[in-house]
Amino acid sequence: MTTVETPTVTVAESPFLQAIVQQIRANDSYGTYRHWADELLLKPYILTKAEKREISVDGEVNLITQSRIMAFFRAVAYCIEQETGMLSQVVIDLSHEGFGWVLIFSGRLILVSKTLRDAQRFGFDSLEKLSAEGEKLVAKGIDLARQYPTICDL
Amino acid sequence: MTTVETPTVTVAESPFLQAIVQQIRANDSYGTYRHWADELLLKPYILTKAEKREISVDGEVNLITQSRIMAFFRAVAYCIEQETGMLSQVVIDLSHEGFGWVLIFSGRLILVSKTLRDAQRFGFDSLEKLSAEGEKLVAKGIDLARQYPTICDL
Repeated sequence: MTTVETPTVTVAESPFLQAIVQQIRANDSYGTYRHWADELLLKPYILTKAEKREISVDGEVNLITQSRIMAFFRAVAYCIEQETGMLSQVVIDLSHEGFGWVLIFSGRLILVSKTLRDAQRFGFDSLEKLSAEGEKLVAKGIDLARQYPTICDL
Repeated sequence: MTTVETPTVTVAESPFLQAIVQQIRANDSYGTYRHWADELLLKPYILTKAEKREISVDGEVNLITQSRIMAFFRAVAYCIEQETGMLSQVVIDLSHEGFGWVLIFSGRLILVSKTLRDAQRFGFDSLEKLSAEGEKLVAKGIDLARQYPTICDL
């Protein structure tokens, strides 16, 4: 029933999904995920509406969710860098109530600017949506970096 | 002996110091500081080298220090806004080790970009240094906002 079992996009086909996988594996110092398939690593990103509702937004965003959010936006930054050659930084300002800002910037230019709400429930309907959302942010970031290269060099 | 007792700049003379005081008073929901002099409110910002050394950088940045850092940068943002009319946001990404980023941005332009280190020890040698550091960030921010107004409108 869920779209996870029958994705219309595979990790192999999506450079953005590959970039997330790469981020997760890069942080896997103890080799916990060494034998895990890429799809399995991305599974926690896929949440149905019902699953989201079950996650409380009262408490703090737990560390696992925080690192999931970080891997997502680091993957966005990586893809923009690959295309433009411009180094970028990811900054996440998350309040204890799951509300916050994510910025990806290069020099003085903000390539990605996102507000987060209910970050405890960070997730996507399907692997396809995850990929599409990432690619959208990447495309916009590349566009801005190409339009204003001088601001990136400041 | 300390420069706090004999400041060469007073709060009344420094728009930046006034802006910090305003931030502190704005967050003083219970009126705790109502009868405190401005200089007293700013006193925790002034730390001698010896006082800084006494503060451990091992633990997390405590909430009082965090709000002190926030008030400082909100004051910077406020002063830039006053001068340029451009609304800006302050984002602080502080790791548990006292290392992090502060960004003040308007639209897609970063007006202030600072890395923090040993944020547990956030402080200045004197009221004059506090004022000068703030004014420097404000001046640079105003300069950037005026140079690239189109990026602020993105």
